[in-house]
Amino acid sequence: MAAISLARLRSRVETLARFGALSGGGVTRTCWSPQHEEARAWLLGEIRAAGLEAWVDPAGNVFGAVGTRAFGADAPAVLTGSHIDTVPEGGILDGALGVLAGLEALQTIREAQAPHRRPLAVAAWSDEEGRYGSLFGSRAFCGRLDLTRVEAMTAVDGERLVDAMARAGFDPRRVGEATAPAGAVAAYVELHIEQGPRLEEARIPIGVVDSIVGVRRTRVAFVGQADHAGTTPMERRRDGFLAAAEYALKARELVVKHGGGKSVTNVGVVRVHPGVTNIVPARGELVHELRGPDPETLAGLDRRSVSLARRVARRRGIDVEIQPMSATEPAICSARVQAAIEQACATLGIPSTRLYSAAGHDAQNLAAITDAGMIFIPSKGGRSHRVDEMSDWDAIERGANVLLHTLLGLAA
Amino acid sequence: MAAISLARLRSRVETLARFGALSGGGVTRTCWSPQHEEARAWLLGEIRAAGLEAWVDPAGNVFGAVGTRAFGADAPAVLTGSHIDTVPEGGILDGALGVLAGLEALQTIREAQAPHRRPLAVAAWSDEEGRYGSLFGSRAFCGRLDLTRVEAMTAVDGERLVDAMARAGFDPRRVGEATAPAGAVAAYVELHIEQGPRLEEARIPIGVVDSIVGVRRTRVAFVGQADHAGTTPMERRRDGFLAAAEYALKARELVVKHGGGKSVTNVGVVRVHPGVTNIVPARGELVHELRGPDPETLAGLDRRSVSLARRVARRRGIDVEIQPMSATEPAICSARVQAAIEQACATLGIPSTRLYSAAGHDAQNLAAITDAGMIFIPSKGGRSHRVDEMSDWDAIERGANVLLHTLLGLAA
Repeated sequence: MAAISLARLRSRVETLARFGALSGGGVTRTCWSPQHEEARAWLLGEIRAAGLEAWVDPAGNVFGAVGTRAFGADAPAVLTGSHIDTVPEGGILDGALGVLAGLEALQTIREAQAPHRRPLAVAAWSDEEGRYGSLFGSRAFCGRLDLTRVEAMTAVDGERLVDAMARAGFDPRRVGEATAPAGAVAAYVELHIEQGPRLEEARIPIGVVDSIVGVRRTRVAFVGQADHAGTTPMERRRDGFLAAAEYALKARELVVKHGGGKSVTNVGVVRVHPGVTNIVPARGELVHELRGPDPETLAGLDRRSVSLARRVARRRGIDVEIQPMSATEPAICSARVQAAIEQACATLGIPSTRLYSAAGHDAQNLAAITDAGMIFIPSKGGRSHRVDEMSDWDAIERGANVLLHTLLGLAA
Repeated sequence: MAAISLARLRSRVETLARFGALSGGGVTRTCWSPQHEEARAWLLGEIRAAGLEAWVDPAGNVFGAVGTRAFGADAPAVLTGSHIDTVPEGGILDGALGVLAGLEALQTIREAQAPHRRPLAVAAWSDEEGRYGSLFGSRAFCGRLDLTRVEAMTAVDGERLVDAMARAGFDPRRVGEATAPAGAVAAYVELHIEQGPRLEEARIPIGVVDSIVGVRRTRVAFVGQADHAGTTPMERRRDGFLAAAEYALKARELVVKHGGGKSVTNVGVVRVHPGVTNIVPARGELVHELRGPDPETLAGLDRRSVSLARRVARRRGIDVEIQPMSATEPAICSARVQAAIEQACATLGIPSTRLYSAAGHDAQNLAAITDAGMIFIPSKGGRSHRVDEMSDWDAIERGANVLLHTLLGLAA
């Protein structure tokens, strides 16, 4: 029975971790950054060295394929992949594992000359983490990117996507060319760390993902008035930050109360203006993120959050600006792909359980154009998006072998 | 009876407002910035053009004097002044008025050959607004600056004072030379806009300041843990920002409840780390400012705030770092200077009232080495530290004439 080489996979994971490595461990490698572009060049070299065809599409997605180079409806490919960009101060696995395990699986299949009827390919999708736009590359590939908005896409720090792409040698006007022809993908399966504690606590080595949460991000800006912080009587102040603080605390309560147990929320970006000690802040701005696996619950939380923001602002006599930034709908994973993963687990004698993904993934976009699914392995301590994110190498080996046999099953 | 020239004063106020002018009105002219240094050069030219001696000390304080150039115990000078630095997006009066009205008063005295026994001087004190260190120049002049801390002083954005001074052509190692000899100042009086609504609402043109609030600034950093914002269960998160939000809201309540009606508080600087949408913020950091005219109440609020921060952190299972940044004690204004101001008002037939200053001022430092006091004029709508800060030109004229006659009274 074909099996992946853990030594080769581990060596690649550790090498990729050097691009954007931080002195205290972990990695910062945001999409289109110099570190990311160096990692891309290295990855293309590894794909070629593995005997696969390698190419990059106009959205910056990197591909490697056994045999065939292009996607076409005449020979639908079974696709795997993930991403090599990271959050700031992220871990070394996250998307990197899915890309490198996919490469390892394809290299194993090629070298073992394991039989497969359908073409096989691996993808590294651009900007999964959404520095400029969440799941950018897979959106473009799946025809789910609003091309009229590319020009306006900016990072939280104000950098424009078009400038970042140009700096990396890409032409943002060509992004639309990345869309795959209808019927080009026969199935998609992605290996990922769970990023949460459920598998580890249940001591089950493989999670078969049945659904993926939707994520909504909204910029909420409370706009009051700048005043002298000494001489303005407390009761006359119109403080934008205190409104934002109240909103953040109450939005958390709201999601805990009305989220049905599976919804979560975060305020990870906060800005005050003018931002000096002795001026009452006129403006308190935050990015409010909501996630949940149930479309109706998620839409309800979004509506309640908007009402909350308006109520907080009204009671404090200030204004509020509410601007939706991005929204992905929850996605259902394909029964056929779930069955293929469970069949691979059975073949390998590895226990598995079904669970939903509490994080967004490129598989959500692929689910719109093909049968898509995901394989999870346990995260140590449930940690993720942190420099100390890790999984056991044994767990990684098991996951990569399940991926290998799932791909062979789907391509048979 | 000698009287200032409003036309000349107004022209200088409007000219100084051009250095660092903002397109929407108001001005940003932080100390040691290129805009500030251009304003300094202009001011030195105006002092000389007015027929006064002009010089700059090693702390960056600008002086103009009628006749004598240096400060000495043999001929104690009556001093007036304020500052020409501004907060970001500040108004055109604030410190500029006190400097330019002082210059106008001295020019009037010189031109009218009005009799005065003591030397007269005007000062523009460095960095009153405290980009690097609150009331920096007057602290240095009054020997109240801890010279061992100069090297470590930094702006909120991380810029070091020593770098800013060097860029402006000053040698930070020489700051200690700015300290005036004991007995060099016979009295100090400063004209300023009230920066609050009390005079305007009472329809009284002149405020005689009897005390000045103390200001304490503390950096409070709540340190939890960065985690994936989708996969970490809500109840396990250790969110530094939500702790900071809770602290800011409760610190306000605390000051309203225990501040004795005259204490105020502000959180004008807030930072979260790592500051991305999909990571639970490990760190929420803010600068907490407390002000009050009563030393015991202020110290009590400081202690209660520290307890509050520890309580919030403990309840949320995270750490807190509390770092005092600066502290000025409330200052009592001299009875002799208050009497001189009231005598000047009586001479001019202008009503006045006593009040405390809710903002910190350089006069606090001067109060430690001489008889010090302040004259307030009404602020339109009580507005201050805002681009639309203003006073009526009639009110400015009245204030400058009260300053003129107070100086003549103190120097007689």
